[in-house]
Amino acid sequence: MSLPLEKTMSSALRVSRTYRIEQGKNFRLKQISPDDTGGLAKNNAEIRWRAKTFLDFASARLAALQDKLYAQKSWSVLIVLQAMDAAGKDGTIKHVMSSVNPQGCEVTSFKTPSSIELAHTFLWRCARRVPEAGMIGIFNRSHYEEVLVLRAHPEFLQAQNLPPLLVTEKIWQERYKDINAFEKHLARNGVLVLKFYLHLSKEEQKKRLLERINEKNKNWKFSESDIKERALWDTYMTAYEDAIRATAKPWAPWYVVPADNKWYTRAMVAVAIIDALESLALKYPKAPKGHKQILLAAQKALDKEA
Amino acid sequence: MSLPLEKTMSSALRVSRTYRIEQGKNFRLKQISPDDTGGLAKNNAEIRWRAKTFLDFASARLAALQDKLYAQKSWSVLIVLQAMDAAGKDGTIKHVMSSVNPQGCEVTSFKTPSSIELAHTFLWRCARRVPEAGMIGIFNRSHYEEVLVLRAHPEFLQAQNLPPLLVTEKIWQERYKDINAFEKHLARNGVLVLKFYLHLSKEEQKKRLLERINEKNKNWKFSESDIKERALWDTYMTAYEDAIRATAKPWAPWYVVPADNKWYTRAMVAVAIIDALESLALKYPKAPKGHKQILLAAQKALDKEA
Repeated sequence: MSLPLEKTMSSALRVSRTYRIEQGKNFRLKQISPDDTGGLAKNNAEIRWRAKTFLDFASARLAALQDKLYAQKSWSVLIVLQAMDAAGKDGTIKHVMSSVNPQGCEVTSFKTPSSIELAHTFLWRCARRVPEAGMIGIFNRSHYEEVLVLRAHPEFLQAQNLPPLLVTEKIWQERYKDINAFEKHLARNGVLVLKFYLHLSKEEQKKRLLERINEKNKNWKFSESDIKERALWDTYMTAYEDAIRATAKPWAPWYVVPADNKWYTRAMVAVAIIDALESLALKYPKAPKGHKQILLAAQKALDKEA
Repeated sequence: MSLPLEKTMSSALRVSRTYRIEQGKNFRLKQISPDDTGGLAKNNAEIRWRAKTFLDFASARLAALQDKLYAQKSWSVLIVLQAMDAAGKDGTIKHVMSSVNPQGCEVTSFKTPSSIELAHTFLWRCARRVPEAGMIGIFNRSHYEEVLVLRAHPEFLQAQNLPPLLVTEKIWQERYKDINAFEKHLARNGVLVLKFYLHLSKEEQKKRLLERINEKNKNWKFSESDIKERALWDTYMTAYEDAIRATAKPWAPWYVVPADNKWYTRAMVAVAIIDALESLALKYPKAPKGHKQILLAAQKALDKEA
């Protein structure tokens, strides 16, 4: 390796912070290019190879932090992943989190809501899956679908069968408020909330969907609905921008991560999570007083056995 | 009966509204006497007998409303019951709700939290039990314990193992805010939130605890902790008053119901629920267009069978 990995880490940390949105008010999606790679060459085998080595290095650091998180059982981490189809959500989970102990990591993929989920308020199914202390919880799609896919598909809102007098033009603003209050509650009670929008361009999505169609091993990933949702691209972009503007807060930031280059997306997500975990100053629990005596006594008892 | 029941109902509705607190700011517990009976004689067999007849009448009305609620599957009702020991929570549920179809009514009694519950944020265990559309959910104790029993017992807060930097002197104010936002979310999404504090005097509690000790059939109800909690009476009263002041809202009112006379408490709780349900203007779902033809065809098919 030509670059020392620690040095790469510190510059990656710096770059990842430029994608962190804590105050949504003035944010615009166009501020961040889906094709951005932080100044690195894009189609360069050497860079990709280095990125892979770096991701291994970052994963190991992430695993070490997660071990402390799990031991301490005081904080938990909620990672929200949102994106258009083919932006790389599944691949990001696979490549960023695979070195993490699965006993301390829980992925929830939110699909079409069940009839029981539809009969509850829109935060219900996500609220029950918030990770417990010590755990990393990953939401593959999340409560944000309630202000994204529902804006693109009014028929899904209809299916929630809300009392008509509660469904007014203020509904999206009310949902943003409810989401903010929910995440504030989590943050105030020991849940570190990190939200990622994998920012893909329409052109790159086309390329990836064509791959899913043309490569046999990727066929299973393709769904007819991908094309239907793609036709609503502009509606989705407006919904994403509005949602990020309304809900990016210091206690629950959004990371808008360029997603046209997978190797870059994965590195940036890994680094952002490391950065946030390091801010918690996690520590292994201290042994209580007199614990050393207990350990020594136990050792003696074991030694005597034979 | 000397009084027509409908007339009693309308005066009872009027009285029950005086116990409804929608703006907590200026509320004081001493404004409502635990011994109040709305001007009715207290130790009078005739009044008690009438109260029983009235409660039957009210229960039937409640059952009819619940039937519509269940059929419509759009609104749900969350009834929160809070009180000191022996104030009559269990008896109120039994006598007020027993005519309601149990298929549409779910009681959750929140006891000492489990280790899984303790590992989640303080709203978690209650949030997952919020009733689904069409249902009446009763919380026998609730998320309010988090700002009541926890204020009296700092060791229970300790057991939640929160990150120390999040536990500041603002914690109760923060919890009130989280509770208000949670209930606002419910109210905005079709859950009617009604909170009852059964307002018992310290003298009447003493009488009832002695009954639990002296009457064999009531022994099982007595717990040693009742006496320990009684010793913290003033702390609890402050905690209740603070909580009601901070969380009584138009969309999630508190009813402070006099609880020294059981027959009166039960009637007032029943009437308050009826009042709130009637405000929803519940209706059986309308048959969709062409439904009549379907019914007639079905009738024909059945007639042909024999």
